[in-house]
Amino acid sequence: MADRRYVGVDLGGTSFKIAVSDAEGRILGERRAPSRSEEGHEAVLARIVGEAKAALDEAGVEKADAAGVGLPGTLDMRAGIVRYLANFPGHWRDVDARTPLEEALGIPVHILNDVRAATLGEFKFGRGRELGARSMILLALGTGIGGGVVIDGKLRLGALGSAGEIGHGIVEPGGPPCGCGARGCLETFASGPALAAEGVRLMWTGQAPRLRDLVEGDANRVDPKAMGEAARAGDSLVRMAIERAGRYLALSISNLIVALHPELVVIGGGVAGLGDLLMDPIRAGVLENVRMFPADDVRIETSSLGDRAGVMGAIAWAMQGGMTEEA
Amino acid sequence: MADRRYVGVDLGGTSFKIAVSDAEGRILGERRAPSRSEEGHEAVLARIVGEAKAALDEAGVEKADAAGVGLPGTLDMRAGIVRYLANFPGHWRDVDARTPLEEALGIPVHILNDVRAATLGEFKFGRGRELGARSMILLALGTGIGGGVVIDGKLRLGALGSAGEIGHGIVEPGGPPCGCGARGCLETFASGPALAAEGVRLMWTGQAPRLRDLVEGDANRVDPKAMGEAARAGDSLVRMAIERAGRYLALSISNLIVALHPELVVIGGGVAGLGDLLMDPIRAGVLENVRMFPADDVRIETSSLGDRAGVMGAIAWAMQGGMTEEA
Repeated sequence: MADRRYVGVDLGGTSFKIAVSDAEGRILGERRAPSRSEEGHEAVLARIVGEAKAALDEAGVEKADAAGVGLPGTLDMRAGIVRYLANFPGHWRDVDARTPLEEALGIPVHILNDVRAATLGEFKFGRGRELGARSMILLALGTGIGGGVVIDGKLRLGALGSAGEIGHGIVEPGGPPCGCGARGCLETFASGPALAAEGVRLMWTGQAPRLRDLVEGDANRVDPKAMGEAARAGDSLVRMAIERAGRYLALSISNLIVALHPELVVIGGGVAGLGDLLMDPIRAGVLENVRMFPADDVRIETSSLGDRAGVMGAIAWAMQGGMTEEA
Repeated sequence: MADRRYVGVDLGGTSFKIAVSDAEGRILGERRAPSRSEEGHEAVLARIVGEAKAALDEAGVEKADAAGVGLPGTLDMRAGIVRYLANFPGHWRDVDARTPLEEALGIPVHILNDVRAATLGEFKFGRGRELGARSMILLALGTGIGGGVVIDGKLRLGALGSAGEIGHGIVEPGGPPCGCGARGCLETFASGPALAAEGVRLMWTGQAPRLRDLVEGDANRVDPKAMGEAARAGDSLVRMAIERAGRYLALSISNLIVALHPELVVIGGGVAGLGDLLMDPIRAGVLENVRMFPADDVRIETSSLGDRAGVMGAIAWAMQGGMTEEA
């Protein structure tokens, strides 16, 4: 067991990451490459093979024992098939992602959703391990809001591997329309674009002078990072907009805490880079909302693996051999 | 194993139930008795012993192997201590419920929260068993709203045994004040009293003529059952009030479905007696809310054990020897 080697792949819409690890999850080789929008799925899979082989070479590993691949979208994990993958080169539909990789690499390949992978990564190798948590919730705040739930050491998947879609819990009935078809999902208030659009509104109504200066009045350049800078520089309404997103996040998190009482909640994704501007209202909101039992033991922390959480989770998934019987 | 016998106790504010079962959960003897408001905890515990012995006699069992006791309130399950028990004879505080029962009955006694017990009962011996569910959420709609979560066959407890407090998830930020100290909890919209109070409002504003006739204008007699009758008799606003409660329930349930994707949601407690008047809007609301993945495989059903769920869960708790290592 001690000399086992694993490959993890985290396939994202703008880039993909590949890492080779030992049995303890130590990285022996790592590759990153941009996703290319002109590619079809065959080309993407072929490039994964090429980069995986390069990472194995870099690690001095002739052959790994298994690979895990995190992909955004809807998957049939048992069959190794990507049912639907949007916002991605080629818009995959019913693509067998496993067979070509298994054939080219000669090892078992296990796929899972990319945010479930990030959850597993943080749990096994990030904040979860640091804090000794047995149960954990992760929210990944990016273009959308993904998530994942670990209960008693086990990643919760459900029949479709879709458990963890916390971003599509509804925080305001009848609220803004969401891409999923529902209204008022958390994602419509606290994703990167949702927050940035609120920044644009404040800029356009003359209520965010620092933000306007920072982005030179260009709405295309408004993003959570610029909003964070503007808030720290004195734009109080921008600060309030971030706080409001934090309060919506706190609402979803609180409702999961009363139901599940996990030891740890991890906030990841690019928006988590706002740091205390976002984390303070989340923590304050949770303490305000959860009164039924003392929840001050629930740690709410930013990700410690950052954008490596997904690839580390893919490695953890390879280590455990993908889905276990009841997953 | 086959000849093992168990005692289950479900201690409620108005009555308590005791049952003796065999190793398959078949009831061999059963007792029910009213709770007496003038009693202190010593008297209640002594009466449990007496009734348990009577139930054992009735069952022809000399001595059981273990007992489970469901109690409303906050418990230290490992220590067997009731930390706080409100709305109950004597208002218990830091009462050792285990030692006196173990001494008098001469068997191991395991305590747990009464609604967690009902969840376990429905899972092991009720709807969960009927439908072969591995993961299940229960909501018990009564004076308050309690709940419980089973993941992969295991009752979720959390550090305090408080996981499952779904009734204290917030469905409307800044909503009505809740007894827990928060605002806008599900319980403030969909508990029996919350629903009945809305019936009173409709009656007092002249919008519920059938309800007024049924209760002879007496607000004290308005309850969910009377509202169900009035709705079926033609009070359309009473019907809408029930639907509104159903929609709030659907909101909480939907948000747990996207996070956990259980196979089964069970609606229990007295308010569930409204049947389709309540279940239809719950089911419709869930289908409307959950769009991120197909959730039409999630069964949403009323309890099949009714008010026996708690005592059956206490038996299941005794069978499994109370808390397991990671519970």
